[in-house]
Amino acid sequence: MGITIRDVAEAAGVSTATVSRALRGLPNVDERTRRRVQQVASDLDYVISPSASRLASGRTGSVAVVTPYIARWFFCTVLSGVEDVLQEADMDLLLTCIGDHNNQLNRSPVAPRLRRRVDAILVIAVPPSDPQLREIIDLGMPTSTIGLTVPGVPSVTIDDVAAARLATQHLINLGHRRMGIIGGSPSEAPFTAESDREKGFSQALTAAGLDVDPILEAFGYFTIEGGEAAMTALLSQPTPPTAVFALSDEMAFGALRALRAHGLRPGVDVSIVGVDGHDMSEHLDLTTVVQPVTELGRIAAESLLVQLREGTPTLEPIRVPTQLVVRGSTGPLPGLSRD
Amino acid sequence: MGITIRDVAEAAGVSTATVSRALRGLPNVDERTRRRVQQVASDLDYVISPSASRLASGRTGSVAVVTPYIARWFFCTVLSGVEDVLQEADMDLLLTCIGDHNNQLNRSPVAPRLRRRVDAILVIAVPPSDPQLREIIDLGMPTSTIGLTVPGVPSVTIDDVAAARLATQHLINLGHRRMGIIGGSPSEAPFTAESDREKGFSQALTAAGLDVDPILEAFGYFTIEGGEAAMTALLSQPTPPTAVFALSDEMAFGALRALRAHGLRPGVDVSIVGVDGHDMSEHLDLTTVVQPVTELGRIAAESLLVQLREGTPTLEPIRVPTQLVVRGSTGPLPGLSRD
Repeated sequence: MGITIRDVAEAAGVSTATVSRALRGLPNVDERTRRRVQQVASDLDYVISPSASRLASGRTGSVAVVTPYIARWFFCTVLSGVEDVLQEADMDLLLTCIGDHNNQLNRSPVAPRLRRRVDAILVIAVPPSDPQLREIIDLGMPTSTIGLTVPGVPSVTIDDVAAARLATQHLINLGHRRMGIIGGSPSEAPFTAESDREKGFSQALTAAGLDVDPILEAFGYFTIEGGEAAMTALLSQPTPPTAVFALSDEMAFGALRALRAHGLRPGVDVSIVGVDGHDMSEHLDLTTVVQPVTELGRIAAESLLVQLREGTPTLEPIRVPTQLVVRGSTGPLPGLSRD
Repeated sequence: MGITIRDVAEAAGVSTATVSRALRGLPNVDERTRRRVQQVASDLDYVISPSASRLASGRTGSVAVVTPYIARWFFCTVLSGVEDVLQEADMDLLLTCIGDHNNQLNRSPVAPRLRRRVDAILVIAVPPSDPQLREIIDLGMPTSTIGLTVPGVPSVTIDDVAAARLATQHLINLGHRRMGIIGGSPSEAPFTAESDREKGFSQALTAAGLDVDPILEAFGYFTIEGGEAAMTALLSQPTPPTAVFALSDEMAFGALRALRAHGLRPGVDVSIVGVDGHDMSEHLDLTTVVQPVTELGRIAAESLLVQLREGTPTLEPIRVPTQLVVRGSTGPLPGLSRD
């Protein structure tokens, strides 16, 4: 156990926030207090880790956010939570987009650019197999991930397996037995959310004694258009599913559109459930597992700031709870009497 | 006429991009070239404006983006265009959210924070009356605005008056005479887009010899829920409008929802047209005036980089064209024969 910021704060008779501000050379600390804190920190030898030392040197005052997309609902909503916390902490937010597997932006690698420019890095939901992720982690800076878990790196996520089980069990409870799934992509290097949500779907079916039929899986690439095409493919089968779990709300929106194009009523003829709590989901009357996306961003930024201050990351993933919200897009199996 | 970056490039026998990179100390310029460019720049006395001088000193390599929202479609889509251009130019993007009138975030003012941290500032659609905007402009850095025009500051916008005229004329051409509008707010300090779109609506009505009836205006505060409430209010009048222009697609989405709740069919019983080209507008079959939002961000960032390089801003607002996309939410006045 090394000396922590709390020890310095106690010895100097100030708050930990004041210690942090004083050692980072930020304003709103009077000069006498600053000198006292610096003296105490020096007396206690309060420079115990590379990140604490970087913090004490006030090196950049910036945190990088690395994301595969900016203009998508999940990503910009996470970003708004992160920005809120960083600005309150008087840290700059340096925003960098790296694209995805299918859309590798023609750019120089991110990691070397970040080396001297930021104190810490927050990575939003890039696929764990992305080589850029490894380069970023190898910089050795305080790093945290959102919606993605990498061994040895602090992370904040929902329990994607549990969220998918919840959605699927809801369909099972409504009497559905022939269940379809709209997955992300047939990629062998999926997002964490993608593989975990597929796992939860299978677990729920297996626990109910139902088979997972590969013919009832289609891929929607996490877009509305993709979801529409996937649902159209599922509906064109000799025996279509009576209920479908879509791995994201945007794909579920597309599925609803495909139903209407076939003259089918959501929640009556075919049930659809998504995951996200997208801000259009209420409008479109979609049953979904809501994840608190702004909170994911807030919590990740807060825990990264603690890591910066203390130099001791919490390696256990932080799990944020989800909630099933039932709306009109799901209903009992047609022909199943509820009386 | 002072010496420009082009003169330096010509004299040194390299591209303007190489001059820029060499003088900013960026990588990918070999040391001999860098020294030659620096010598030429020095010989020609190429430090002719504060911004060029700041550029030559490689002061921060960062551009600030100041926005009232992050997790809203228009703002995150603009942001993605800006980020794309800045990253290509090897500039860092520092993201700062300042909230809006109704939601002043409890934070320290933005302008002092930016003073020594960035080379230039891009402001997205804050209301022109926001006191923070004046403080930012008064920093005297190269500054540009998107979706907002301030005299003396370079800007990139659509022609909001023309966009609103286009939408309204479409309704007039369909035979509608009793026209409603869903505005932003009754604020006396509106966004530029807000006041200009109201103006375009009035202009089109007046040009067609129709009255602007204040009783047919309701406010939706640029949200889906607000649009729904506003449409509900319009429908509760003794003689409701047969067609409604909503100042944004999100408010139009809410209006569509209100129609359905009243058993009315969009485009048959009541027509609705929006402005934006929101990525859900096709899905919801909404007629709208599409603005190229990613392009707004790209163009603004590019012109800001030119301003940084050359030190001579283009004060004439850059107008980006819009396009009416007709879908199912608008149709001829009920009872009006088209044969």
